Amino acid sequence: MRDPLSSIITGIKPSGIRKFFDLVTEMNDPEVISLGVGEPDFDTPWFIREEGIYSLEQGRTFYTSNAGLKELRTEISGYLKRHCNVDYVPDGEILVTVGGSEAIDIGLRAMLDPGDEVLIPQPSYVSYEPCTILAGGVPVIINLKEENEFRLTKDELLAAITPKTKVLILPYPNNPTGAIMERGDLEEIAKVCIENDIFVMSDEIYSALTYGVEHVSIASIPGMKERTILINGFSKAYAMTGWRLGYACGPGNVIAQMTKIHQFAIMCAPTTSQYAAVQALRYGDSEIEKMRESYDQRRKFLIHTFRRMGLECFEPFGAFYIFPSIKSLGMSSDDFAQELLKAEKVAVVPGTAFGDCGEGFLRISYAYSLEELKTATDRIARFVAYLKAKKAGEQS
Amino acid sequence: MRDPLSSIITGIKPSGIRKFFDLVTEMNDPEVISLGVGEPDFDTPWFIREEGIYSLEQGRTFYTSNAGLKELRTEISGYLKRHCNVDYVPDGEILVTVGGSEAIDIGLRAMLDPGDEVLIPQPSYVSYEPCTILAGGVPVIINLKEENEFRLTKDELLAAITPKTKVLILPYPNNPTGAIMERGDLEEIAKVCIENDIFVMSDEIYSALTYGVEHVSIASIPGMKERTILINGFSKAYAMTGWRLGYACGPGNVIAQMTKIHQFAIMCAPTTSQYAAVQALRYGDSEIEKMRESYDQRRKFLIHTFRRMGLECFEPFGAFYIFPSIKSLGMSSDDFAQELLKAEKVAVVPGTAFGDCGEGFLRISYAYSLEELKTATDRIARFVAYLKAKKAGEQS
Repeated sequence: MRDPLSSIITGIKPSGIRKFFDLVTEMNDPEVISLGVGEPDFDTPWFIREEGIYSLEQGRTFYTSNAGLKELRTEISGYLKRHCNVDYVPDGEILVTVGGSEAIDIGLRAMLDPGDEVLIPQPSYVSYEPCTILAGGVPVIINLKEENEFRLTKDELLAAITPKTKVLILPYPNNPTGAIMERGDLEEIAKVCIENDIFVMSDEIYSALTYGVEHVSIASIPGMKERTILINGFSKAYAMTGWRLGYACGPGNVIAQMTKIHQFAIMCAPTTSQYAAVQALRYGDSEIEKMRESYDQRRKFLIHTFRRMGLECFEPFGAFYIFPSIKSLGMSSDDFAQELLKAEKVAVVPGTAFGDCGEGFLRISYAYSLEELKTATDRIARFVAYLKAKKAGEQS
Repeated sequence: MRDPLSSIITGIKPSGIRKFFDLVTEMNDPEVISLGVGEPDFDTPWFIREEGIYSLEQGRTFYTSNAGLKELRTEISGYLKRHCNVDYVPDGEILVTVGGSEAIDIGLRAMLDPGDEVLIPQPSYVSYEPCTILAGGVPVIINLKEENEFRLTKDELLAAITPKTKVLILPYPNNPTGAIMERGDLEEIAKVCIENDIFVMSDEIYSALTYGVEHVSIASIPGMKERTILINGFSKAYAMTGWRLGYACGPGNVIAQMTKIHQFAIMCAPTTSQYAAVQALRYGDSEIEKMRESYDQRRKFLIHTFRRMGLECFEPFGAFYIFPSIKSLGMSSDDFAQELLKAEKVAVVPGTAFGDCGEGFLRISYAYSLEELKTATDRIARFVAYLKAKKAGEQS
């Protein structure tokens, strides 16, 4: 029997996060504390779950329209106007998807012809590169720098552009670094995109989670709405990961083609989730605020704690990750993570899971209670002290 | 600004079903009765919704593993053993997806290299052709014949095979014709597939809905499990369309690659739906039986009624559609459907929405109450009588 597999998919590496969690799972040790997960530790707020329950009681178990419930698209439009100062028409410029993930995938499928180049700043979420390849595109990696707080600079962008560049992925607030882009940063990027006729896929799934700084969407910058696909969703802001609900907004012609793919490949997003999300957008602001305050408290604790360990750690203002450097310890991220897991039973994700330039860094999620974070960081501090002592011994 | 769109997606026609429903929606007339929809008219059975409600109350709102809940994969494995006599290992041979739709899409993406040919018997569901093109494959249409009751014959298959043929899509029980394939039919197809080293994507989403004949899966025929991707789900059998839950089973290497795509492009199927589906598989057999009895009653009523109108209508033994011929009326399917909508306010889908060889046929769904079916068929009968009288007048 011949090989049933496509050479395209077999050539794509599996996710480095996944690889690491398989290790953790294999250990099957209840003492392991994970700081590795990329989802909120909060249950979905009760009033949102209640609406899901109500919709099931009412027997709303049928398909919705392909683009998603009109009510939901109307609320999304209002939310983006309120929070990002950008206007999207519910009919034609908004598509409800199965999480932000589906939006990324079908957005690239709608826009790429074979050989089109997609600029992917890294470290960043693991899906952009494989989804680009699967859509027939060519990923071009931009290695972000800690000295720039992992923001994308105009010069880095210019250096990566070729005549084949079609799309720039803009992943801010960023997973795994926690980096954000402020208005001034975005204005410089926007100018380059307009001058070079490049489209932007702006993955703003963490937009509700910024600390002390307002999130700015590149779509709100003059001249950019018509060349931006804005991606967002409910997973991170509303602690709704399992509901699988996101959305894409953009120019009508792109959304129309994305809707066509969505219709053939998915049909519609889950109905119960859509009804619940209407409530989330209508009444969720104060719940988001409460969660954001918790995250912020943890964020401050972690930065302080890692710096006290003597590890460099730039202050991230978004998402729920810190990204400390372990370069001073003279160990690779992968080795550090594996040794830490073995020695102290703490799971963290090596920075290399998010791109080669993540070497020397760790992604530490703070979607965990302060208590868990304290226990875990005590263990990490002990491990770091041990490594330092060992290194000092070798050098003397 | 240049064109943001991929030439691949713009080259794909939108769904013919969609086009027709847009017409219906535009009419916005409460008197229109639709016999056009492809989803059960039943609410999801209460005990299944109850489990969804319970899982929300319990705060099970997080991601599941990429492949889906272990419990659910175990129940799927048991269900397929019981109903289709085929063994799939829960770990590695089963992937839980967002409906059957996602399974079709990622199955093709996992298997096709550019230029690989996919055999698509038509009339059939509207997704196979666009998903093949989006995955870089070349759709090769096999036009099924009413004289064979729209079954795929060995000779039709042989005539379509070329050195580039990689996958045969086997869409039975069939939407839109209601056709099924019995064991003897499948054995002939299996032999050809094995001799020509072809893989099969068997879309069995209507497998629970056959009337007086047991459903047979081609995966249960010796030598076929290793070359079959079996697709099924909860939408049709359990009236769970809005829950967006399906699954794919197959050889470990294909499922592994499908899981990789699923992980990047979707993450996991909706969590609430997964918990509810476990209950559906454990305790749903009698509910399915009740719904099947209703469908069967309606099926018999429709066949009888259309034959009384003088329209040829082969007896379909699966799904919830009949596919009467209007060839004797000398009108195209599209014209008939549009004229019927205008004259009698009944919406039916032209057979051409499912392939060119659907010309001269209509898809009539019986996912409607007997009362609605009676009212609608009275109107259709009146319209047919009018057409016949008109035709007789023209001829005399």
